[in-house]
Amino acid sequence: MQFTLEKTDPSGARAGTIKTARGDIRTPVFMPVATRGAIKAMTARDLDEIGFDIILSNTYHLYLRPGVSLLEKAGGIHGFMNYSGPILTDSGGFQVFSLSDLCKVREDGVEFRSHIDGSPHFFSPARVLDIQKSIGSDIMMVLDQCTEYPVEEKAAADAVRRTVAWAGESLSYWKAGFDADMQSLFGIVQGGVFPGLRKECCERLVELDFPGYAIGGLSVGEPKDLYQEITELTAALLPREKPRYMMGVGSPMEILYAVRCGVDMFDCVMPTRIARNGTLYTSHGRINIKSARFENDFGPLDAECGCHVCSSFSRAYLRHLFKAGEIAALVYNTYHNLFFMKRFMEEIRNAILDGSFPAVYDRWGAVFSGAGEE
Amino acid sequence: MQFTLEKTDPSGARAGTIKTARGDIRTPVFMPVATRGAIKAMTARDLDEIGFDIILSNTYHLYLRPGVSLLEKAGGIHGFMNYSGPILTDSGGFQVFSLSDLCKVREDGVEFRSHIDGSPHFFSPARVLDIQKSIGSDIMMVLDQCTEYPVEEKAAADAVRRTVAWAGESLSYWKAGFDADMQSLFGIVQGGVFPGLRKECCERLVELDFPGYAIGGLSVGEPKDLYQEITELTAALLPREKPRYMMGVGSPMEILYAVRCGVDMFDCVMPTRIARNGTLYTSHGRINIKSARFENDFGPLDAECGCHVCSSFSRAYLRHLFKAGEIAALVYNTYHNLFFMKRFMEEIRNAILDGSFPAVYDRWGAVFSGAGEE
Repeated sequence: MQFTLEKTDPSGARAGTIKTARGDIRTPVFMPVATRGAIKAMTARDLDEIGFDIILSNTYHLYLRPGVSLLEKAGGIHGFMNYSGPILTDSGGFQVFSLSDLCKVREDGVEFRSHIDGSPHFFSPARVLDIQKSIGSDIMMVLDQCTEYPVEEKAAADAVRRTVAWAGESLSYWKAGFDADMQSLFGIVQGGVFPGLRKECCERLVELDFPGYAIGGLSVGEPKDLYQEITELTAALLPREKPRYMMGVGSPMEILYAVRCGVDMFDCVMPTRIARNGTLYTSHGRINIKSARFENDFGPLDAECGCHVCSSFSRAYLRHLFKAGEIAALVYNTYHNLFFMKRFMEEIRNAILDGSFPAVYDRWGAVFSGAGEE
Repeated sequence: MQFTLEKTDPSGARAGTIKTARGDIRTPVFMPVATRGAIKAMTARDLDEIGFDIILSNTYHLYLRPGVSLLEKAGGIHGFMNYSGPILTDSGGFQVFSLSDLCKVREDGVEFRSHIDGSPHFFSPARVLDIQKSIGSDIMMVLDQCTEYPVEEKAAADAVRRTVAWAGESLSYWKAGFDADMQSLFGIVQGGVFPGLRKECCERLVELDFPGYAIGGLSVGEPKDLYQEITELTAALLPREKPRYMMGVGSPMEILYAVRCGVDMFDCVMPTRIARNGTLYTSHGRINIKSARFENDFGPLDAECGCHVCSSFSRAYLRHLFKAGEIAALVYNTYHNLFFMKRFMEEIRNAILDGSFPAVYDRWGAVFSGAGEE
């Protein structure tokens, strides 16, 4: 993996390219989430058509189902999904803490029970890398300890200490046993909303010298101003020449803010999750297709969009499908929202390259202000 | 609407073409069911790609939701769905009898309550044609009274008498107020499993001289031999030069049998419904993708199929998606089964044209014999 910065806006926003063996990733980039080897309510062909440079899949979910042995036989996640582009996987840590039952953090890893069948499992820094080797991810993440919001500073400090120790272990294990050209490894900054802890975590991870750095533990319920403060502070402490990835974020405005702080990569289930609830991004803000005001609206979802859903169907028809519980409604809504995200990120990248980023930032800020933004 | 017979096999199977203002329909034909203006788990683009000559939609469902007024504003069902090919609609009678609450048959029509909100409604022969006019169907069906299996002969005779009376009313109403070139009208033969009643109903409807004839009230639970006996008897009593449509049928072998009796058109939710339950048609019979035997099966669903699902994904991946509850599994399964049905009907038609129909009949009979067929 090789990262090239093409342009840095005076605001701090960056446009770059991550070269991987499976293709180039133009940043800032949004990665849609193929939780269990498929993006919910998306087909592989629709995904190809939209043309994301990279997608994300979840180690925790793949590990439990279909499992490591099957994935190995299938030629990894790429063979299993029949997908040839770059794939990033998380370490599974976040899901262990948020989804599994009876999770118990030890110094050497984390014990947990499957949320599917209650079976006992153990993830260590080395184990999650082995799993990601079987998955065949192009970019792997280290095991970290994510904290909730709110969290006591003492607990956050503990998590940072453990996260840093695991990061060191992970890096050594990776250097000893992985092909760095095929599978890169990112460190993850934790520290909750405590500037001192974030700073400490950054410094320790930067000393270790990872190929890239992720910011974890944000957009977990903290107020907007804390999200912004910690994002700005953390991004500024990460090395300029390495890609920066904000995990699990987010809404268009959260992404835009982080881009302005110099963050390059994003993933979030929000566009696909809200689509399945009828909420759609448009050039003029968010709408919910269930609304009675669309009952007789024969105009497109978003006249400025250009996706096949907007050029084929009326709001009235899409509302009817959604109200009738048609599966096609979920497919169309998801397609539209992911198309929106792709175009949104392209617009941001182009604006960084041509110097219009501040104007684009302000324009979207106005669109998503107030009721428009979640 | 114009029907041309191209070839009649010595067995009785026919190949023909129905010309409509919206396109030609090559028969024998299978019509997938867009119940509420969408085929369940299918997108419009996937449907276009498979390329059915005609699809079916349900008057009862469209009448309740989105309703006649909205459909009129949308430019009918074609404008609403953004679909330009021929569409056949049933009269709504079948759903009134099978789905609605408190349905009450009167001499002039049928009172019922919506299965959605319990609101009271009334369908008469003229009313269902008015609704189908608003829908803009290319082929409309008369209101009929479908009987269940088993049914007393007295009740079946009553239904035939009413069905014939309504058919006469419908035909007069259609002749007086419809553009026959744009909206054709088929009569429907009832009579349960009673040969005498079927014969009487056929004779009375043929006297009325409809542009086409449907066979209703079969595949409603009767044993296979009765289905076959009544199909053969009824088809033989219908005029050679008019299209014959077997309503709501069915499995590949039910279709094949009816084709051999000279039936030209079919519709059924079976291929899409069983797909959503994981059951898939293949060149070698039916399989259920949930089966544990596919867990490590990296071969295609059906090596002889050629649809994009079979050429892209393994059985192991499709099984994983289905077991994980992914929406994509429903979309892929539905696509495959409809692709199968399209290819199946094409093979039948080509076999009639080139004289190999008996061989094709026997080959599929062997494939779907025993456990292969439902």
